[in-house]
Amino acid sequence: MSRIWENDGIYKRIRNDKLRNRITTPEKAVDFIKDGMVIGTSGFTLSGYPKAIPLELAKKNMKTYEKVKISLLTGASVGNELDGVLAQTGAITRRYPFQSNSYMRNEINSGTIMYHDIHLGCFPQQVRCGFFGHVDLAIIEAIAITEDGYIIPSTSVGATPTFTDKADAIIVEINTGVPLQLEGIHDIYQPFEPPNCQVIPIIRPEDRIGTHFIPINPEKIKAIVITDAKDNMRSFSQDNLTDKIKEHLVEFLKSEVKRKRLPPNLYPIQSGVGNTANAVMAGLADSDFENMYVYSEVIHDSILDLMEKDKVNTASATSLTFSQKGWKKFYGSEKFIDKIILRPQDVSNNPEIIRRLRCIAINTAIEMDIYGNVNSTHLIGTKMMNGIGGSGDFARNAYLSIFISKSTAKNDCVSCIVPMVSHVDHTEHDVHVIITEHGVADLRGLAPRERAPLIIEKCADPDYRPMLWNYYIRAMRNGNHTPHLMDEALSWHVRYLETGSMKQ
Amino acid sequence: MSRIWENDGIYKRIRNDKLRNRITTPEKAVDFIKDGMVIGTSGFTLSGYPKAIPLELAKKNMKTYEKVKISLLTGASVGNELDGVLAQTGAITRRYPFQSNSYMRNEINSGTIMYHDIHLGCFPQQVRCGFFGHVDLAIIEAIAITEDGYIIPSTSVGATPTFTDKADAIIVEINTGVPLQLEGIHDIYQPFEPPNCQVIPIIRPEDRIGTHFIPINPEKIKAIVITDAKDNMRSFSQDNLTDKIKEHLVEFLKSEVKRKRLPPNLYPIQSGVGNTANAVMAGLADSDFENMYVYSEVIHDSILDLMEKDKVNTASATSLTFSQKGWKKFYGSEKFIDKIILRPQDVSNNPEIIRRLRCIAINTAIEMDIYGNVNSTHLIGTKMMNGIGGSGDFARNAYLSIFISKSTAKNDCVSCIVPMVSHVDHTEHDVHVIITEHGVADLRGLAPRERAPLIIEKCADPDYRPMLWNYYIRAMRNGNHTPHLMDEALSWHVRYLETGSMKQ
Repeated sequence: MSRIWENDGIYKRIRNDKLRNRITTPEKAVDFIKDGMVIGTSGFTLSGYPKAIPLELAKKNMKTYEKVKISLLTGASVGNELDGVLAQTGAITRRYPFQSNSYMRNEINSGTIMYHDIHLGCFPQQVRCGFFGHVDLAIIEAIAITEDGYIIPSTSVGATPTFTDKADAIIVEINTGVPLQLEGIHDIYQPFEPPNCQVIPIIRPEDRIGTHFIPINPEKIKAIVITDAKDNMRSFSQDNLTDKIKEHLVEFLKSEVKRKRLPPNLYPIQSGVGNTANAVMAGLADSDFENMYVYSEVIHDSILDLMEKDKVNTASATSLTFSQKGWKKFYGSEKFIDKIILRPQDVSNNPEIIRRLRCIAINTAIEMDIYGNVNSTHLIGTKMMNGIGGSGDFARNAYLSIFISKSTAKNDCVSCIVPMVSHVDHTEHDVHVIITEHGVADLRGLAPRERAPLIIEKCADPDYRPMLWNYYIRAMRNGNHTPHLMDEALSWHVRYLETGSMKQ
Repeated sequence: MSRIWENDGIYKRIRNDKLRNRITTPEKAVDFIKDGMVIGTSGFTLSGYPKAIPLELAKKNMKTYEKVKISLLTGASVGNELDGVLAQTGAITRRYPFQSNSYMRNEINSGTIMYHDIHLGCFPQQVRCGFFGHVDLAIIEAIAITEDGYIIPSTSVGATPTFTDKADAIIVEINTGVPLQLEGIHDIYQPFEPPNCQVIPIIRPEDRIGTHFIPINPEKIKAIVITDAKDNMRSFSQDNLTDKIKEHLVEFLKSEVKRKRLPPNLYPIQSGVGNTANAVMAGLADSDFENMYVYSEVIHDSILDLMEKDKVNTASATSLTFSQKGWKKFYGSEKFIDKIILRPQDVSNNPEIIRRLRCIAINTAIEMDIYGNVNSTHLIGTKMMNGIGGSGDFARNAYLSIFISKSTAKNDCVSCIVPMVSHVDHTEHDVHVIITEHGVADLRGLAPRERAPLIIEKCADPDYRPMLWNYYIRAMRNGNHTPHLMDEALSWHVRYLETGSMKQ
């Protein structure tokens, strides 16, 4: 596959003569957005989302009482120039399938935006099948349009192939701020549909099975806007506690290799999004593991570090979500681009592949309970943080499902190990191993009565252990398979709401 | 594939000359079972489990204080001659992955047997990879042993190919009570393992991809016992309320076809186990749907009825679980056997196939909450009923995940729609549609604040609706994405424990 490393130019960015005539301004393009539309945009974990047109819609809405309101569908979370400004200007009625923007979150929690939190790997099929209504318009960030009028996406693929396929019309934001160097990194494949369903022929993480562009009907492209706006980049931080978590993780994986339950180079790794996940993956860079593979949904800085040290051979995902430093490293070397594949999220997060490759899923939790149930979305059972994302796609179908968390939050006023989680995203059936800075609880094969002592002693903060033991011992007196006191199970959350601390 | 319809005989049942010498009595065979062993047996939903040797072990244990204690692994639930008698005679220390026997359940709930409730489709891989220790012995019910010494299973496949592969030794119970007519119904295929992983080449429910016997090393067979003990058969009952549930289901499926979200013959159907599931499937027999397919884990009476009416073309599963009437019908006609395929449970319940075929999953619930979370295992949050079984394999990976339940239980003293379920087996992310005798709540695309009113009005018992509204309205005042009152969320369960009724 040829890549273009030369300098940019409009002919390199829009290689189809006819389509160059569709270049317009954001001010004009925004007129394609009508009130009540269902709009699907590119973007996955603050990466590769359109920026110019949403900003224009926000401006337009700020000038009028007759606000244009849309249902917004994306791959996953998108930046403030999309989720933030549209939430702030009353442009969103419904939002699927994931978000992480503070303005969006506020509107969701206040009940003004209807949000349905959906497994990212299931979402494209559900869109295709009309579960969320007809898609009127797709707004897609791209690095280029090919001679045939096909779209080369930018820094993420997400659900873009689904949106461009189902939408009546497409608007493209050509982002000249993203180097053409990225061309060839994408592998676009769309699962076949019944009655013609077929296997997805990925049997190794490095298998390429599709095209490096999104085939579309070029007639659908109604407008093209040129931008150079950067993705709203994340930065990663690290602290002493995540250091300990990553040590525990590496030790645990080593012991699994020793017991011959994992091969010396492990199985392909999925890791969640965010600081802790990034830090924990960084732990593998300091380990002796080699020849590893990543089959995940996002590629963050730590995976570049692993590649730099020649410890990861290939990383497959649907999004690049680097810090500014990470982007510099990525573009600064030809080493990475051949080792990374970006796929649609219904391939990166597909149960078929996750099960076949025996992925090791490493995801973060907000809170976990003494029986191994995990809450990864709701604060105190009610307030939505971001969403389940792809964690459920991986945790359910993975070979090994690991959840990590610090043992406390909010200056130790919250214990992340509680008697009963206030919301369940991952059930006891999908949680094999729990790791906090204090240690590892390997729950496989254990009955609830065996899990509770282990989780309390290995994972809970020592300050909260006596309280957890107290609850568990009294619950045991009532007996049954999963001992609980129904009138106290959520009392830690009640106390936090009343006093600002779970401590007694 | 040739089938043998002639009369039985030992030469037809054990076709390998050498192995005929291994025939022994249950009394002698039981001596292979040593204290502390991990034993895997055939059996899935009270079907195809060994009976003679477990009974012998129970007898042996009754005669001594030095009880032989084992870890018991099966495909899924097994009959009283295995789970019941061994639980009663103190023979079990650990039990995986599913059960439905009242004696077993009592020991599990009293904490004397350590039970880990596991997705049935994930279990065989976890056994193979040593998550539950080394498998010492496999005890397998079979209808015959081939010339090559391979095993032809009886009425279920379950995890048998995994157990025979991993165990050091195998004991076979040849059940002459199960006609040889069954030969050819099985399709034994074991997923490849990394680094040689391969796709599972099923692209239609009727695809046969394996052998009609389980290939084993015949040297492993240490003893063969001849029995004619029947499976402990289930009977199915039906009532007026399930009639209404099935009407709602058929209406809902029809409306999906009308909206072009389902093809006229639907997608392959999975239905759970038990009375309600059987009754609901029977509803499809009275409907206009034709050319349907079943891709499920068990085949019960209603599916025979559907086949009798030429409405189901092929049914693929891992177990036949008929009533006595059903068995009579099954053996009374050559019509059925060519239309039924029994696969290992890691193929019948495999996420790869479930996703690829776009299965419609129909499972039953113990309780559901106003936001769509489902409890299918625990009474009042603590007492284990049976287990999650395969419902999670299907609900997570299905095209459409439907949960059904009556709206009340225990003479209306329990509402099956509650503010918050006391245990979560299926999260809001995996529950698309809820059906009770009162109606259908289609939750797809809806925010929690939209789901609650719908579930209350469409699905809850009218007697409980005012109480649910009262809770929900007060919870809404506290705001947030999923409104809850932490100090009242489980109060209905507390009230039931205190007064014997959830009613105020």
